[in-house]
Amino acid sequence: MVDILHRVGIKSSVTDVYAALTTTEGLAGWWATNTQGEGDDLGGVLRFRFDAGGFDMKVLELHPGRRVLWEVVDGPEEWIGTHVDWNLDQVDDYTIVLFKHEGWKEPVEFMHHCSTKWGVFLMSLKSLIETGKGAPDPHDVKIDNWN
Amino acid sequence: MVDILHRVGIKSSVTDVYAALTTTEGLAGWWATNTQGEGDDLGGVLRFRFDAGGFDMKVLELHPGRRVLWEVVDGPEEWIGTHVDWNLDQVDDYTIVLFKHEGWKEPVEFMHHCSTKWGVFLMSLKSLIETGKGAPDPHDVKIDNWN
Repeated sequence: MVDILHRVGIKSSVTDVYAALTTTEGLAGWWATNTQGEGDDLGGVLRFRFDAGGFDMKVLELHPGRRVLWEVVDGPEEWIGTHVDWNLDQVDDYTIVLFKHEGWKEPVEFMHHCSTKWGVFLMSLKSLIETGKGAPDPHDVKIDNWN
Repeated sequence: MVDILHRVGIKSSVTDVYAALTTTEGLAGWWATNTQGEGDDLGGVLRFRFDAGGFDMKVLELHPGRRVLWEVVDGPEEWIGTHVDWNLDQVDDYTIVLFKHEGWKEPVEFMHHCSTKWGVFLMSLKSLIETGKGAPDPHDVKIDNWN
């Protein structure tokens, strides 16, 4: 098992970051403009749709201001059954986001791509909250020939 | 052992990307403005200096247009003994860079930070080659309270 790890610091309260991870408006503002479902519905499913396909995430854990945990229930084969784990902590003026996409079976080339792309989307999350403007799909920063 | 993985695609030849990884001018253009040493000297040591400290990398392998491998011989304790592995491949109009920073003992919080920061610097490498302008330290994109 191998994991994708990231850390960003966002100049804001944990409340605002938690909202950007658990509301359709928030998620659509930094990740996928086409987001459906309710992120604050424990056991519910969020549907993120991109040009190239999409991901369905079951909301496994919700701890307001502290943690969100999703399980991938549909999407690319390599993603199914993996977990996306968000941990929040207030440090001085920052909300520190510790991100983990865990449970990949193999460190395939697609995992390398997803690691970089998650980093870009986390910077989009940071930008959304700090400036009011994120870069969600289809306006996302392109990183390679897989987009 | 846990690894940091990334993938970017750069619209250029492998020759230009290889040069950006093996010349002082190239390395100073996307990673650390204060870079010393010779990146094309097998067995030599590259010295990268940042505001917060630095890294010394021994050049272990050089395969022009295909691969560069460094070993961290000085720097933060968590980095010493780890390897930074660059693999290049031409795919259509892109040079695909598969990046691996491997040999971390534990997935500590600092590793999460370094993963995101490597992603940002890989985008700086892409920008340097595609537009002529990278964002090396001290002009790098800040990601959190550790910079």
